[in-house]
Amino acid sequence: MKVEQFIENAITEIRNEVQGQAIIGLSGGVDSSVCAILAYRALGKRLTPVYVDSGLMRQFESDRIEQLFKEIGLIRVNAHDKFLEALKGVDDPEQKRKIVGETFIRIFEEEARKIKADTLIQGTIYPDRIESEGGIKSHHNVGGLPITMEFKRIVEPLRDLYKDEVRETARVLGLPVEISERMPYPGPGLAVRIIGEVTKEKLDVVRKANAIVEEEIMKFSPWQAFAAILGKATGVKGDNRIYGWIVAIRSISSRDAMTADIMELDWNVLKLISSRITGEIPSVARVVYDLTPKPPGTIEFE
Amino acid sequence: MKVEQFIENAITEIRNEVQGQAIIGLSGGVDSSVCAILAYRALGKRLTPVYVDSGLMRQFESDRIEQLFKEIGLIRVNAHDKFLEALKGVDDPEQKRKIVGETFIRIFEEEARKIKADTLIQGTIYPDRIESEGGIKSHHNVGGLPITMEFKRIVEPLRDLYKDEVRETARVLGLPVEISERMPYPGPGLAVRIIGEVTKEKLDVVRKANAIVEEEIMKFSPWQAFAAILGKATGVKGDNRIYGWIVAIRSISSRDAMTADIMELDWNVLKLISSRITGEIPSVARVVYDLTPKPPGTIEFE
Repeated sequence: MKVEQFIENAITEIRNEVQGQAIIGLSGGVDSSVCAILAYRALGKRLTPVYVDSGLMRQFESDRIEQLFKEIGLIRVNAHDKFLEALKGVDDPEQKRKIVGETFIRIFEEEARKIKADTLIQGTIYPDRIESEGGIKSHHNVGGLPITMEFKRIVEPLRDLYKDEVRETARVLGLPVEISERMPYPGPGLAVRIIGEVTKEKLDVVRKANAIVEEEIMKFSPWQAFAAILGKATGVKGDNRIYGWIVAIRSISSRDAMTADIMELDWNVLKLISSRITGEIPSVARVVYDLTPKPPGTIEFE
Repeated sequence: MKVEQFIENAITEIRNEVQGQAIIGLSGGVDSSVCAILAYRALGKRLTPVYVDSGLMRQFESDRIEQLFKEIGLIRVNAHDKFLEALKGVDDPEQKRKIVGETFIRIFEEEARKIKADTLIQGTIYPDRIESEGGIKSHHNVGGLPITMEFKRIVEPLRDLYKDEVRETARVLGLPVEISERMPYPGPGLAVRIIGEVTKEKLDVVRKANAIVEEEIMKFSPWQAFAAILGKATGVKGDNRIYGWIVAIRSISSRDAMTADIMELDWNVLKLISSRITGEIPSVARVVYDLTPKPPGTIEFE
């Protein structure tokens, strides 16, 4: 099916399925952005796109998303404290994903009540569904939907698309390159890039490290490249022993995220990133590079 | 000073300082092995070399050490349970080093009492002393000596040597290549190559992973190459999501361990090690490569 045809069908489908008001969780990723534009074309003012600023996003990302989507009526909800509170003391990765998903949904429900919307539109794509069935991911996008959800209807217009088809659709829809070519980013955000409990301190460290990784690796066109925090190890700064964070760099190539290869980056690039991260973030002691393809690794660390 | 001259002086020094019986903790590393041979030449049967089999050693290492040093009267003490018990529930790296050091010393004291030895001979070398003073390491060899030690006298014949001088001495003394060219190995052994609590399961995983790392990297003549366990992360084996160990590979070049560079290994070697470790050890989900030189990293992870 041609992209133009898909767009037309999707708009028709959304119009047929949605009575009244609908809400969409916009994360800034290509999936939910494409989905939001399709839904906006189908529903106009009957659509309310909501961006939940969870505090789990990358540097400057929230401001940029707000700016890009204000013309389709984006609502930005600041929920930093709500997420940190909900994640306090939680180590287990499945638990973290569920908590993040549930917190997102509760906020959407709150927003939906305000505008009396009973439909949630989601940018779930084909590989997400496959992986959910296999139990590999409990959660995509805003996901891990709690069973007691208040919405009457979930609409998933992209459910049969692969990632490259979503990107093609984004280009045809005229979305800016920073969206159409945007790296995949997990729904639970930095929460699954921190092994163990999520804290404000760890979020700040991983966000800074991630900005450095993106600055140095994006030019090599990875499928995804990011930083994660694995725990603590010793190091020596100045003349003293420290016990600081271990930051992992993940940089992979892939066609559809179902499988992934590690990128064989130049050693000078890796050494530069390592020295920038330990140099610019005082509390980091070590930097490691993930050598695990998928499978047997997953793309994210949790 | 020529090596032959050093050997002669050291033997004289040991003879002068030791009255009666002495004991030496032999770890199998080049430092304590050279020290044991020198002390044996100085004291003969008045020396008792003790090998404490802590359960924190590498694959097959303990049997090999016993075999190599039985001719100078080595006593092997099995203390697996004692160490595991002492380390139970302990996360803090400094604490772990101290507990391992103290457990070693208590066992030496016990052995010393049996033979009425009041002198402990140790293979401490020059860089160990420098680093102890800077607070970078609390512990070398068997170290972190508890203040309440029962020994009247500590003798350290190698205290002014650099590592390459110790190796040269080993060669002149006619020690086998596997000792004279042996990689440095930390006194607390695998305990500082496991982030967090030391358990039997983690010891088995890190020992197996380490054997693979040595098999694949030793041919490239690293200063040190080893495996460590950093924590847990997700992976996918068969069709199922797992939550398994993260194994780190460290491979460095150095002249004297005071500073170290990471080795720029061929990607095919790194990928082979990664696939062997995840393939041969079912509970491992990820393999990472340490990109941190010293400084700001230390050589060991804890």
